[in-house]
Amino acid sequence: MKARVHVMLKEGVLDPQGEAVRHALGALGFDGVGNVRQGKVIDLDLPEGTTEETVTQMCEQLLANTVIEKYEIELV
Amino acid sequence: MKARVHVMLKEGVLDPQGEAVRHALGALGFDGVGNVRQGKVIDLDLPEGTTEETVTQMCEQLLANTVIEKYEIELV
Repeated sequence: MKARVHVMLKEGVLDPQGEAVRHALGALGFDGVGNVRQGKVIDLDLPEGTTEETVTQMCEQLLANTVIEKYEIELV
Repeated sequence: MKARVHVMLKEGVLDPQGEAVRHALGALGFDGVGNVRQGKVIDLDLPEGTTEETVTQMCEQLLANTVIEKYEIELV
């Protein structure tokens, strides 16, 4: 089975990568681009029967810095 | 409107970040984790009526290095 985890900076945490993308898009002529947030996506091949709880533990222990980042888990 | 863009390394391109995550999960006691791929996710606030074609141009010109990366676009 597969899991996809999105790790994004929490709302209110400054996202300099996203800001850089926003400025660069404007410089390339893409007008009107508003807020941009950049995060990580991690695709995992997991043993069959892995629970969402296990993936949550992976996020809490390794994948996300929960002080400044939030995560979303999708099991496929 | 919003768009979410996933940028992942193409199949066959070595992903050292993903490998590092796989090893670290094993060291933390999560057994049987197979392939891990890490990529970027970019959430964009766009003007109403922006077409998928425009977002494709953003990917080709800035967001992805299409030599080694592939991208997927979701409009919301």
